[in-house]
Amino acid sequence: MRDLLPNEAARRQRLTRRLLDHFALHGYALVVPPAFELSSVLERGLCSFGPGDLLRFVEPESGEVAALRPDMTPQIARMVATRLVDLPRPMRLCYEGTVLRRRQERARKHRQIHQAGVELLGAGALDGDAELLSLAASSLQAAGLDRFVLDLGHVEIARALVAKLPEGLAKGIFDALAQKDADRVGELLDRAGVEGREARALRELPRLHGDGEVLVEAEGLLGETGAAPALSYLRELWDRATAMGLGPSLRVDLGEARGLAYYTGMVVHVFADGPGEALGSGGRYDELLSRFGAPMPAAGFALDLDDLAWALHVAGKGERLPPKVLVVGDEAATLCVRLRTAGVACLPAPEQADAEAHALAWECSHLLSAREGGFDLLVLGTGESVRLAAVEDVLARVREGA
Amino acid sequence: MRDLLPNEAARRQRLTRRLLDHFALHGYALVVPPAFELSSVLERGLCSFGPGDLLRFVEPESGEVAALRPDMTPQIARMVATRLVDLPRPMRLCYEGTVLRRRQERARKHRQIHQAGVELLGAGALDGDAELLSLAASSLQAAGLDRFVLDLGHVEIARALVAKLPEGLAKGIFDALAQKDADRVGELLDRAGVEGREARALRELPRLHGDGEVLVEAEGLLGETGAAPALSYLRELWDRATAMGLGPSLRVDLGEARGLAYYTGMVVHVFADGPGEALGSGGRYDELLSRFGAPMPAAGFALDLDDLAWALHVAGKGERLPPKVLVVGDEAATLCVRLRTAGVACLPAPEQADAEAHALAWECSHLLSAREGGFDLLVLGTGESVRLAAVEDVLARVREGA
Repeated sequence: MRDLLPNEAARRQRLTRRLLDHFALHGYALVVPPAFELSSVLERGLCSFGPGDLLRFVEPESGEVAALRPDMTPQIARMVATRLVDLPRPMRLCYEGTVLRRRQERARKHRQIHQAGVELLGAGALDGDAELLSLAASSLQAAGLDRFVLDLGHVEIARALVAKLPEGLAKGIFDALAQKDADRVGELLDRAGVEGREARALRELPRLHGDGEVLVEAEGLLGETGAAPALSYLRELWDRATAMGLGPSLRVDLGEARGLAYYTGMVVHVFADGPGEALGSGGRYDELLSRFGAPMPAAGFALDLDDLAWALHVAGKGERLPPKVLVVGDEAATLCVRLRTAGVACLPAPEQADAEAHALAWECSHLLSAREGGFDLLVLGTGESVRLAAVEDVLARVREGA
Repeated sequence: MRDLLPNEAARRQRLTRRLLDHFALHGYALVVPPAFELSSVLERGLCSFGPGDLLRFVEPESGEVAALRPDMTPQIARMVATRLVDLPRPMRLCYEGTVLRRRQERARKHRQIHQAGVELLGAGALDGDAELLSLAASSLQAAGLDRFVLDLGHVEIARALVAKLPEGLAKGIFDALAQKDADRVGELLDRAGVEGREARALRELPRLHGDGEVLVEAEGLLGETGAAPALSYLRELWDRATAMGLGPSLRVDLGEARGLAYYTGMVVHVFADGPGEALGSGGRYDELLSRFGAPMPAAGFALDLDDLAWALHVAGKGERLPPKVLVVGDEAATLCVRLRTAGVACLPAPEQADAEAHALAWECSHLLSAREGGFDLLVLGTGESVRLAAVEDVLARVREGA
């Protein structure tokens, strides 16, 4: 488990606010589920996380088994089904918080992931999915990221193609697809002696990844298979998203077989330079709400804020922090009051200490001292020092750097 | 465990931001400790919470015992001692998050408490305590609360008075003091046949609660006892806080014996109309950091955001939410883009639905439709409907309500 230390925490806070404000701008209402939840609720949403991946504990008095969530969507589904079910649809909800996942690699210890996401419930699939893709793109832009990829897939493509295969073989092929291992898919099919349209399509799936031409190529290959309706839906969604201006970011990955098991339709993964994994993902989960007794179509996506911050850093678009002034001298207390009244963050320098070292260690932007009826302002980033006559001049200079 | 549903969650988010922004304005740097922590770290801060009050679980792979925090201060102490210890002092840190406490009453189930707080480490006691009292008061004002009480105490007063008593009797008296039960204190002392200055002072402590005159009265009573240094410190702090303009909010409670066992000096409880308990509390804990190997003086306070929201509601100062417009008709998508570009939150109304019911259910402030070259804007709070010619007029009207 990781601490966020002073500077990183402030950047993270700004990034989170930026995203939540963007979601709110689009009419998504914030909800806050509790930090842990009855294990039985979370298990209804389990999936690629096995039940062994939940960190559970027994509430000593009640004897109830609670768990730390690996994913917030099942909690929101529970909330919608029990407390919001009478509200008119579609429902637009957003959230932010930490989830706990077991690492897939090496030590398999749990790691805490800070997420922000949205859920759109009760909307038609095509309208809903298009709105979510557009919101995912504009959210990334609002966070400052210009270059990213929205990688579209549809869980029914691979599922339909393996539908008639024996269960063990189907699972093997799924695992191979998840690892983009075309050779292994071929091997498994060869060994089982499976042929026909579906088998041919499965062999090709791992390379059906790229821009819109993949969809054209796939039509020939999947057109006569059980995957045709999913492909045709994806084509419609692609066209809609392109018409909304998302074209430059869109990719398609027909071999996509990862992702949460509760997904039933479109899935999307967000990629950008930096993190070696998807920095966000989402999809349609039309069956999940019925597990909570309130059937309705639904879809959503979540962004991993660690990974998004990483991508922003790589793109040179990390959050800039607002100015913070370290004030030196006898007048520090009075000066601080004036700066704060004007909305500028500041703190008095400790007496008899190295003020500049203090300012640098605590990531102040400026060092201010009152001297001989005026002010000396040191800009810590540049080392530039200016002499100013009035507090108003100080405020103007400090804000100018922001 | 409680959900925060749409409207309450948005209000809570605004309140939290207001407090964190205020802490930042005063130079307090945000830190974010993980949601759970090694049990051994949390136990170093245990106290009025017994070890049985921690919700623990075993990390399956590592076998380490982790726990959900009942309090964030020990986590921050661990962070300071391990990762920030080389930074120049004083250190000003702030945080926000949920802690998990077992209810004292009835069912004793755990409840999640949403807190925001600060820690000031490495500052002198009087300067530090005065800064914290002043920050507590200005934070409450920044949140919108004008009427509140800062109830000051000092843990060394009761501790010094029971110091020479047998352990069992001392504990009994402490419990009686915590319950403000003067009769019980007297009974215990009578039964044990304890007399002298300390005993006389203990009998009077529960009623030494009120404004500054209590301090004057207490001087006669405590002057010659082991509690004299603590009383004299409290008097100095009182004078300093009064000089800072906090006088109208200050009270003193010399019988205060509750609070976290790691406190070593001043303690403060915040009260306001509404919640029947302290909506915030804090104190000095000069010994805690040495348990993490980095001895330094420290103090802090935390506000309970549920209780603060309650007090604000009772005071008629609850958070107002920004405008949110439900847009009706064929032009909804285009209109939404224009409103959002101007920073106004909006969403398109679902087709063929009762738009006004949708707007009310989702707590929109306005209903907007484009009609015959102009706009109809319905203000949902007042029911007033206006005809406007241009989008700019719509924006002006919508913002005016904010």
